[in-house]
Amino acid sequence: MGEAIEVRSVGHRIDADRLLGRLDELARIGPIDGGGSCRLALTDDDRLGRDLVVTWMRDLGLRVSIDSVGNVVGTWEVGQGAPVMTGSHIDTVRTGGRYDGNYGVVAGLEVIETLMKAGQEPPRPFAVAFFTNEEGARFQPDMLGSLVYVGGMGVEEAHDVISIDGCRLGDELDRIGYLGNAPCPSTPPHAFVELHIEQGPVLEAEGFRFGAVDGVQGISWQEVTIEGQSNHAGTTPMGLRHDPAYVAGEIVVFLRRLASEIGGNQVCTVGKIDLVPNLVNVVPRTATLTLDVRNTDEALLQGAEARIASFLERIASEEGVKISTRRLARFAPVDFDPSVVDLVENVIQQRGHSGRRLPSGAGHDAQMLARVCPTAMIFTQSHLGISHNPAEYTSPQDLADATDVLLDVMWSLAHAPFARSDSEGVRP
Amino acid sequence: MGEAIEVRSVGHRIDADRLLGRLDELARIGPIDGGGSCRLALTDDDRLGRDLVVTWMRDLGLRVSIDSVGNVVGTWEVGQGAPVMTGSHIDTVRTGGRYDGNYGVVAGLEVIETLMKAGQEPPRPFAVAFFTNEEGARFQPDMLGSLVYVGGMGVEEAHDVISIDGCRLGDELDRIGYLGNAPCPSTPPHAFVELHIEQGPVLEAEGFRFGAVDGVQGISWQEVTIEGQSNHAGTTPMGLRHDPAYVAGEIVVFLRRLASEIGGNQVCTVGKIDLVPNLVNVVPRTATLTLDVRNTDEALLQGAEARIASFLERIASEEGVKISTRRLARFAPVDFDPSVVDLVENVIQQRGHSGRRLPSGAGHDAQMLARVCPTAMIFTQSHLGISHNPAEYTSPQDLADATDVLLDVMWSLAHAPFARSDSEGVRP
Repeated sequence: MGEAIEVRSVGHRIDADRLLGRLDELARIGPIDGGGSCRLALTDDDRLGRDLVVTWMRDLGLRVSIDSVGNVVGTWEVGQGAPVMTGSHIDTVRTGGRYDGNYGVVAGLEVIETLMKAGQEPPRPFAVAFFTNEEGARFQPDMLGSLVYVGGMGVEEAHDVISIDGCRLGDELDRIGYLGNAPCPSTPPHAFVELHIEQGPVLEAEGFRFGAVDGVQGISWQEVTIEGQSNHAGTTPMGLRHDPAYVAGEIVVFLRRLASEIGGNQVCTVGKIDLVPNLVNVVPRTATLTLDVRNTDEALLQGAEARIASFLERIASEEGVKISTRRLARFAPVDFDPSVVDLVENVIQQRGHSGRRLPSGAGHDAQMLARVCPTAMIFTQSHLGISHNPAEYTSPQDLADATDVLLDVMWSLAHAPFARSDSEGVRP
Repeated sequence: MGEAIEVRSVGHRIDADRLLGRLDELARIGPIDGGGSCRLALTDDDRLGRDLVVTWMRDLGLRVSIDSVGNVVGTWEVGQGAPVMTGSHIDTVRTGGRYDGNYGVVAGLEVIETLMKAGQEPPRPFAVAFFTNEEGARFQPDMLGSLVYVGGMGVEEAHDVISIDGCRLGDELDRIGYLGNAPCPSTPPHAFVELHIEQGPVLEAEGFRFGAVDGVQGISWQEVTIEGQSNHAGTTPMGLRHDPAYVAGEIVVFLRRLASEIGGNQVCTVGKIDLVPNLVNVVPRTATLTLDVRNTDEALLQGAEARIASFLERIASEEGVKISTRRLARFAPVDFDPSVVDLVENVIQQRGHSGRRLPSGAGHDAQMLARVCPTAMIFTQSHLGISHNPAEYTSPQDLADATDVLLDVMWSLAHAPFARSDSEGVRP
């Protein structure tokens, strides 16, 4: 790797109506107000979505394999060697938009159907996958299916994960008919590329249509619990307080200042605060808040974590409260394969579109596949960056044109002679 | 008024076992874990509590009157003129302790029973009242019953108040059998004194057993709603955020600094914060928080409100969010009658106890009665200031000794020739 991959355009365009039609049809399963969907992983609605996509795969004549954590791969069995794979997920958060995940899966089918209709066969198989429980809205961790797919988590361990509604993942797979027997972890693909909406505002704000995603930010999630002393808001002089809400406020402000000081692509977010008892005239007994801290640079991310830890220690001592932390998630930053990122950038340019390299702020299945094969992602603009919301929006023109980019990227990858592909079970 | 009231001790002591026994019996109605009670106003459990206290009143031979907002007054009809009244409330918050309110009512009965048993009759009637919905935990505003009792709110308006569970106050009074026909607003008592636990840590922290309460802090409650833009926590650069949680944090920190700068007895509390959607990886769409700001000085309280308003304007502009505020409650500070406060202080001293004057940080029925007659309050220590919590605690010795103080204060008030008493309907 490291060598440039030659751009090869297959010279066809995908069928926008067919692409958008499939997106519409999928969005109508588990519909919610505003045009989005709710298909939490391994629920009945997720099964209906899976059944629909599997039907499309079979209608195209793909070989459908289902593995022991419910990852589904449809393979167009042409050419020789390991497949060029694309795909994403079709599970959603509770207030899911219609594009997040779904688009990458439907676009993969569209690439294959376009080539089939044109009578053009790639020199390797093309595969489209959808991975189980990418969102993490029902089972933790998120990206569970792709993690198990690449050997990062054992099948038994995954089966024993319990959902927020108290169900065992293995039982739920069985219940909805998606406990398959394809080998897992799987043989690595030749290469993997995932097409996804940005879910952020950067491309739109800077006037670029598409992004060549060069990596995924490292993510540090922790839950901070502050235990103080509950008291009457009117009768407790300020000097006698041990107020968890005040400490929570200081932490929120500290995180904003920290992000400014580190700069670059550092982001820090407090998205969740729960006070107990949460009443107007009571100094709370406890405050629980979450810290979401991300950076593409592992050293900077660790630096941020260390500064947070020492701030927590200082503020706890100043206010006389007890602070404990619980790690909710931690992913090191992921760098995608530079030659595949270059390829994506070159294809965007050659198709005549505006584009820029950028990191992904959100986690994606592609970051798991990056452990076992050359990988990158393609982003489309998302209007205002709104996602996990029925108001999620990417224009039909962008959806169609980016699928053309995916087509050429996959076609080029099929011809690229990666040194390690076609060996068996190469995994870091 | 303004003239010193002579301290007259009746020379008897109350019966501590009887006092504590009644407190225990009342606490067993609507019991909750930890020994407290839940008797939200006008619920079935409140009715059971009311029935018990009314039974005690009748057993003592008191005349029981119930008015059109369910305030209950038990009067020992001796002597002549308007009664010396004591009392409090027996409704509780959801996590009520056993002393808040209940103690003042039971202590009033104890004073009367002690005098009866001793064969000592005061020159005026003695009355014990419990007022409806003091806590405001089920109906807004709090202190509703005593407010209507003194003519500060109309009966019809009070009847139309809707509870947090969607019930009309008038209907609930009728349902539990406490829609009475005694005149309301009522003829003012000769004087009013309320015995209550401090619900704050000041007496204990400073080593005083009892307090002569000289007034009630003014209270400003507002709800602040911050509308920003919800976005993905990973994909939205810091510079493009309009983050309501961050703004909420800045407000919390500002309030603490404001309280420090104003000093004195200024207190500021954020007890309630609600983020939407309240998820770890989502910049919230809205944050709603409550501000509880109190001072005994109206000018200082208004100054604090003005500084908060200009801070909200500035932070809204800096972060690009919309901030709206809604007034939840506003009470000007109340000054109790100096001659009655002096009397309480003198009785505490004459009984050989340690005491100090202090303002009340919490609202009490006494502040409503202060509009129509000479009024003050007696406070006992509350351990650590814990209240609205089953862990609320005042020692049996303090409970008994403070009831002796109440006895002497009421006895002295019965002999005090307030200029305006015994006239009819004097109200400001």
